[in-house]
Amino acid sequence: MSSTTQLRSLNYDNINPHVKAAKYAVRGELAVKAEAIRREIEQDPSSHPFDHVIFANIGNPQQLDQKPITFFRQVLSLVQYPDLLQESNAEVVKQLYPEDALERAKWLLKSVKSVGAYSHSQGAPPLRDSVAKYIEQRDGHPSDPESIYLTTGASSGVNTLLHVIASSPNTGVMIPIPQYPLYTATLALLDAKPVEYFLEEHAQWSTNCDDLYTVIEKAQAEGTDVRCICVINPGNPTGASLPYKSIEDIIKFAAEKKLVIMADEVYQTNVFVGEFVSFKKVLRDLQKQEPGKYDNVELVSFHSTSKGMVGECGQRGGYFELVGFDPKVVQEIYKFVSISLCPPVGGQCLVELMVNPPKEGEPSYDLYKKEYDDIYNGLKTRAYALHKAFGEMEGVESQDPQGAMYMFPTVKFPPGVVAAAEKLGKKPDEFYCMELLKATGVCVVPGSGFGQVDGTWHFRTTFLAPGTDWVGRIVEFHKKFLDTYRN
Amino acid sequence: MSSTTQLRSLNYDNINPHVKAAKYAVRGELAVKAEAIRREIEQDPSSHPFDHVIFANIGNPQQLDQKPITFFRQVLSLVQYPDLLQESNAEVVKQLYPEDALERAKWLLKSVKSVGAYSHSQGAPPLRDSVAKYIEQRDGHPSDPESIYLTTGASSGVNTLLHVIASSPNTGVMIPIPQYPLYTATLALLDAKPVEYFLEEHAQWSTNCDDLYTVIEKAQAEGTDVRCICVINPGNPTGASLPYKSIEDIIKFAAEKKLVIMADEVYQTNVFVGEFVSFKKVLRDLQKQEPGKYDNVELVSFHSTSKGMVGECGQRGGYFELVGFDPKVVQEIYKFVSISLCPPVGGQCLVELMVNPPKEGEPSYDLYKKEYDDIYNGLKTRAYALHKAFGEMEGVESQDPQGAMYMFPTVKFPPGVVAAAEKLGKKPDEFYCMELLKATGVCVVPGSGFGQVDGTWHFRTTFLAPGTDWVGRIVEFHKKFLDTYRN
Repeated sequence: MSSTTQLRSLNYDNINPHVKAAKYAVRGELAVKAEAIRREIEQDPSSHPFDHVIFANIGNPQQLDQKPITFFRQVLSLVQYPDLLQESNAEVVKQLYPEDALERAKWLLKSVKSVGAYSHSQGAPPLRDSVAKYIEQRDGHPSDPESIYLTTGASSGVNTLLHVIASSPNTGVMIPIPQYPLYTATLALLDAKPVEYFLEEHAQWSTNCDDLYTVIEKAQAEGTDVRCICVINPGNPTGASLPYKSIEDIIKFAAEKKLVIMADEVYQTNVFVGEFVSFKKVLRDLQKQEPGKYDNVELVSFHSTSKGMVGECGQRGGYFELVGFDPKVVQEIYKFVSISLCPPVGGQCLVELMVNPPKEGEPSYDLYKKEYDDIYNGLKTRAYALHKAFGEMEGVESQDPQGAMYMFPTVKFPPGVVAAAEKLGKKPDEFYCMELLKATGVCVVPGSGFGQVDGTWHFRTTFLAPGTDWVGRIVEFHKKFLDTYRN
Repeated sequence: MSSTTQLRSLNYDNINPHVKAAKYAVRGELAVKAEAIRREIEQDPSSHPFDHVIFANIGNPQQLDQKPITFFRQVLSLVQYPDLLQESNAEVVKQLYPEDALERAKWLLKSVKSVGAYSHSQGAPPLRDSVAKYIEQRDGHPSDPESIYLTTGASSGVNTLLHVIASSPNTGVMIPIPQYPLYTATLALLDAKPVEYFLEEHAQWSTNCDDLYTVIEKAQAEGTDVRCICVINPGNPTGASLPYKSIEDIIKFAAEKKLVIMADEVYQTNVFVGEFVSFKKVLRDLQKQEPGKYDNVELVSFHSTSKGMVGECGQRGGYFELVGFDPKVVQEIYKFVSISLCPPVGGQCLVELMVNPPKEGEPSYDLYKKEYDDIYNGLKTRAYALHKAFGEMEGVESQDPQGAMYMFPTVKFPPGVVAAAEKLGKKPDEFYCMELLKATGVCVVPGSGFGQVDGTWHFRTTFLAPGTDWVGRIVEFHKKFLDTYRN
C-alpha cells in the first residue's frame, strides 16, 4: 500500500489495473535514461565519454537529421499561411515557392477550408479521394474513399480497431512475436488476450502458416474467442518483408478461421528486397480467382506519414482502409473516431501529399525524386553496414536487411552477463542495452520489449542515425562488455 | 442477430458493448444529415430552400469563416518550411514576415528540432516551460513544467485521465448535467459510472454545492466508488461562468470527499461577464490560507488551442496540468500518453504561441490585439443578438450569455409536437432540431445529447456563424413549427 492511500483519491493500488499492466518499452526506462544523459551533456559537454546521444531506440528520422521532403514542407507552409497565396504577394512568393506547390496548397485549402477547422471525423473527403486513388494505382484494384479513415498517425487507427474488436477478457487477437509493443499495450488496456505466433528468426523472420493453425487451435481449445490476426509487413522490429505467397496463406487462414486481418503496412515503401505487396491486393486477387469464397474477409490496413521516405512522425498523419466489414460495425467505428473529433488537419494534408507526390514533368519532380532516392539509398546503405558490423561481433547474429527501419539481432550472452544482470534485477538484454547506452550514448531497445523466444536475447536498433561512427562504438563496446563478463 | 453473424468475425451483436453504449450526439444523426444536405446543395444549389448549411452544432470557428490570428499562422508557416529562415532568403522573406515571427520560428525550431520529429511524450520541454509561465502569470502562483502534458486537443487529455481513474464498473465520476458528451462517451467506453449533478438553469446554470453532497452521498450509499468530479468552466453547453466562491466550494467539497477535480477550462478566454478564475488559482489560494489542509487535493486542468480567440480546432493542440497527484500515479499517466507517442508537434508549437502571444511594443502586437479583440467582440455581439432573438420566440427561454461559445435555450413544446415526434420514434427536441435543419439549413444539437431535466427540452447552438440572418431564419421557422403542431 502506498503511503498516500489515505490522503488522495488515486494511488498506485487503486487506479485502472489495465493501465498498469500495459508495457511500452520503446519509451521506457532506457529512453528516459537517454533523455537524462542528453540533458547532462547539454549542461556539461564533458559529463560523458561521448558528445551526444544517438536515439536508435525509436523510428524518428527527423530527430536524427533526416531532412523532410522539400515539396511537402513548401505546401504545408502555404496552407498554414494562406495570405501568401493572395495575388498581391504573387511576385514575392514565386521567388520562394514553385508553381506546383502553390497550386497544391490552393487545392488543399479548397478541400479543407482551413487547417484550423475540424474536418469530417473520417478526414476531409477530397483528401480521402486521393488516398483511394493511390491504393488503386498501387494494387490495380478499386478503392472506396468512404472506406478510408484518416488518423492521428497509424497508432490511433490501431487503437480504434482493437477497441471495437475487444468485447471481453476472452477476446483473442493473434500477434506476431516479436511485435511492435503498441499491440500488446493496447490489448492490455482493453483487457483482451494476445495470442502469440512466433516468427521464424532463422528463415529471415518469416511467418510459418502451419504454425498459425497450431496456435489458434490451442487458443480456441482453451476457450479464447480469437477474432483477429495482426500482421506487421514490412516487419517491426524484424525488418522482414512478406512474399506474395505468405500473404496469400495468411488470408486463406483468416478466411477459414473467420478472423479480421489487421495489416500494419506503415513501412510499405521501406523495402530493400523484392517489392512490397499489400494485403488488399492479394485479397482482391484471391476474390477474382475464386469468386464468392473470400467475400467476407474483413481486412483493415494501416499506413502513416511517419515512416517511409516521408519520415514526418511529429505531424501525426495516417490512414486506414476498411474492406469487407459489416456496415453496422462500420457505423460503430465511425462513432468511435468521431469522439476524438478529427485527426490533425495539417497531418491530413501531408497524407494527401504522400500519396500524391509531384509527377514527372512537374516543377518539383526532380528535387522530390532526388530527395526520395537519397533517403532510400541512405537507409539501405546503413542497414547493410550495420548488418556487416553485427556479423563481426562475437555471439551476435542478424538476419539480412529486407525492409522497415530496424534490425533485430540476436545476442548470445556468457553466463557472467546473466549473473550480473540478475544481481541488478534486470534481464540480460536490458542490462546490455543500459550498459551500451552509458558507455557509448547509443540507445537501443532490449528484445524483451518486443517479445522473443525464451532464453534468446535481442535488441532492436534503427538504422536511421547518419554516419557509421556510432556502429563502430557498438562494436567496440560489445567486445569490452563480453571481456568484462566472460567469466 | 445480424444476417452476417455466420459470415464474418465481427457483427453488431459481438463487438465491444461499451463502444456501442457510447453516445456522441455532436457528430451524430443531425450532423450526418447536415453534411448530406451540404453536398446536395454543392451539386444542385436549388435543391433546398436555403443556399448553405450553418454548422451551429459544433464549436468550429474557422469552418464558419473566423480568420486565424495572423502571427500564429506566420510562425507555423515558417516552422513548416525552415529553408525560409536561411540567410540567403532573408531579403525576400522579410517582405512577407515580421521580424518577431521569424525570431519565434527560429526559437521553436531550436526547441523541437523539426515539427516532423516525434517529441518527448509529454511535449517538447521548452514549450512546456512557456505554458508554465503562462499559468504563473494568470494565477499568481508557480507552475511546474514537469507537470504539464501537451495533448492532441483537450479531448485526448480527458481520455487519458479517465483511463487512469476508471478501475472498475463501480468507479463513479461526477459530471454536470448538461455536459459536453465527451465525458459520458468516454465513461461508457471505460465501463465506468457517470454520477450526475444537475446545474441550476434558472440561476444562470450555476453549480449548487449543497446538491453535490446530496448526489455523492446517494451514489456512495448505492455502493459507487466516486473518485472524481468534472467541472466545465466556462460551461459547455451552458455558457455559464463560475464565480470564485463556487470554485472554492467545489474544491472544499472535493477535498472533503477525496475526489480528483477535472477542470475543463478550454473556454477560459471566452468570458463576457466578470473574469475567468482558474481552479488552480483558487486551490493555491486555499492552500495558502489554511496550510496543510488542501495539500492532497488532486487537480487536473485542461486547455486547448481549439477555442478562445485562437479557434484552431484542426491543429489539435492542448495541454493539461497535474497538481497534487501521487508520483506513482503520474508515472502511469506518463506511460499511458507515451503509447500514443506524442501530440502533433505543429499543435504543440501553436500551444506555445497561444500562451506567449506578441507583447506590447513588438512588431506583431497591434495586429494581434486588433484581431483578438475583433473576434472577442464579434462573439459577444452575436451571443447577445441570439439571446435577444430567443427572448422573442414563443416558449423559448435562454439564460444571459456569460461565456464559452454556446447557448442552451429551453423550449416548451405543445402536445402536438410531442405526439408528432413520438410517431417518428424521436424525442421532441430531436424532432425539432431535424425540422429546423431541413427548413433553414441551421444545424443545432438537441438537448438530449447533453442531458437535461426530465420533461424539459433544449438545444445547443454556437454563436460562431457570422451575421445574424441565420438567427432570423430560426425565429421564422420556430413560429411556423409551433403553428403547425399547436394542436
